[in-house]
Amino acid sequence: MRALIFDGQLRLATNYPEPVPRPGEALIRPHLAGICATDREIARGYMNFRGALGHEFVGTVVESDDERWVGRRVVGEINAACGACPTCRRGEGSHCPHRTTLGIDRRDGAMAELLALPVANLHLVPESVADRAAVFTEPLAAALQILELAHVRPTERAVVVGDGKLGILVAQVLRLMGCAVHLIGRHPERWDWIEALGIKTGDGSDLADRSVDVVVDCTGNPGGLETARRLIRPRGRLMLKSTFHGSVEMNLTPFVVDEIAVLTSRCGPFEPALRVLERRLVETERLIEAVYPLDQAEDAFEAARGRLKILLAIA
Amino acid sequence: MRALIFDGQLRLATNYPEPVPRPGEALIRPHLAGICATDREIARGYMNFRGALGHEFVGTVVESDDERWVGRRVVGEINAACGACPTCRRGEGSHCPHRTTLGIDRRDGAMAELLALPVANLHLVPESVADRAAVFTEPLAAALQILELAHVRPTERAVVVGDGKLGILVAQVLRLMGCAVHLIGRHPERWDWIEALGIKTGDGSDLADRSVDVVVDCTGNPGGLETARRLIRPRGRLMLKSTFHGSVEMNLTPFVVDEIAVLTSRCGPFEPALRVLERRLVETERLIEAVYPLDQAEDAFEAARGRLKILLAIA
Repeated sequence: MRALIFDGQLRLATNYPEPVPRPGEALIRPHLAGICATDREIARGYMNFRGALGHEFVGTVVESDDERWVGRRVVGEINAACGACPTCRRGEGSHCPHRTTLGIDRRDGAMAELLALPVANLHLVPESVADRAAVFTEPLAAALQILELAHVRPTERAVVVGDGKLGILVAQVLRLMGCAVHLIGRHPERWDWIEALGIKTGDGSDLADRSVDVVVDCTGNPGGLETARRLIRPRGRLMLKSTFHGSVEMNLTPFVVDEIAVLTSRCGPFEPALRVLERRLVETERLIEAVYPLDQAEDAFEAARGRLKILLAIA
Repeated sequence: MRALIFDGQLRLATNYPEPVPRPGEALIRPHLAGICATDREIARGYMNFRGALGHEFVGTVVESDDERWVGRRVVGEINAACGACPTCRRGEGSHCPHRTTLGIDRRDGAMAELLALPVANLHLVPESVADRAAVFTEPLAAALQILELAHVRPTERAVVVGDGKLGILVAQVLRLMGCAVHLIGRHPERWDWIEALGIKTGDGSDLADRSVDVVVDCTGNPGGLETARRLIRPRGRLMLKSTFHGSVEMNLTPFVVDEIAVLTSRCGPFEPALRVLERRLVETERLIEAVYPLDQAEDAFEAARGRLKILLAIA
């Protein structure tokens, strides 16, 4: 089959072996896959990954032990847990030490004509949610994890640092709380439609030090983290959404003095994300900058640099 | 001026004295006023109120010491606090023991050609929010208070008991969290458009005992409270939104055993409510069943029984 793989370099393979589903796994034909910042890091050697890339997808089940899934349109959680270890038995499969992760860690991903995932990872896509929206389920779930971790009140002020794909989704989720939301970034060309949603945008220079109740850093770079640290009020909540590639040194003593909670998250809940898409509570269409066919996946990766969402059309 | 008053009976007065604003108060000409369940109780003698009814309104400032307010379109918080007592100095003016309350307690209300309120109570209405939406600011603020009190997570299940005006607003606010939301009521004729928003409706018989994370009672009657008590899970949060007219006996021991938090609220925050209206996050138009001119206010009160929102058009 065709697949976009990394084997020391990023390339389109035309004769890559099809995945062989294990017991309990389904075989899925992806329709669309999204390119995310993590994919671009993997293409530079992150995680020492080898195989087909891609973890954001929507597709159709073509094979499963459980006939009820065959022919259904699905999205899938990316961590394939063992299901048997103490961590899994506590219901925390996304932290299973034996897990593989779709397109990220020892499991071929979704930028291919077929992928395999445990049936336990799958979620049906409601009929009213189009493929172009459903492909955002995984990053939207990551954004919703903010609300799972912390109580953000309608009377509070929230700031999101970073106006990339994830930052814009996080700001949109915070907007639903009724609270004042500011998105700080460096891409004024993206701000008009975001402002129209009731989210203030800017470079953050108008925001007073130590004035913000909830700050979410979506930049993953030391500059963004420094901005977040400057803005957070005593007793505020600072949330870190991005994977920091490499280590970031940080003096935590001021946080202790100011009683600031530092909350971190990686993956989020899929069912709420699908409900939010079904209720049309977030704008995803404006996040899509281009759709490339799988055959032009290498060009798509090049185009994804510094852009909003680039999708791959597969089947 | 004309005003709908209660002086032992409900009647339209045509020569009622105009309010005389005290220092710091503005004189406002209401455009629309909403009839709420509390108004109907007042018309039956609740609070021993005497004077012009009405606390839900949108209007234009016609007179103020502060010229910047004159001509502006406003909504207003209903509790007029003294501003000087220890409660007010703690920032809790809505609990000021010396407060008067618009159309509810020793202050003439909004179902009249003019009303007076402290400038400190006023909020500008954003241009994009029409009068027919802005008139819902007060009840929507009351609904948003749910989110001020408790952390409702996207992965949780919330149930609202009571499909009246307030219950439908509360369900719509909970819907924004991404959580599963059920509205339990007795008015199937109202459910189609509510279901289309992603809110499940029904009589609650399909919901298992002790299965719900967050239950909000918006009925204010013992039957509704009993349903809420049946559904709430151990360690869940039970919220009481309605004013109980008269006392309701309740054995609290099971709550202690099950570690259930009982949270209550009355008024809510206006600025978040205006942001939610500006962002078009809740449907208010479908809540309006009829608009009556002030001259037909007595008929409007009669029509409001068992109906959704009835508005009075004043100026």
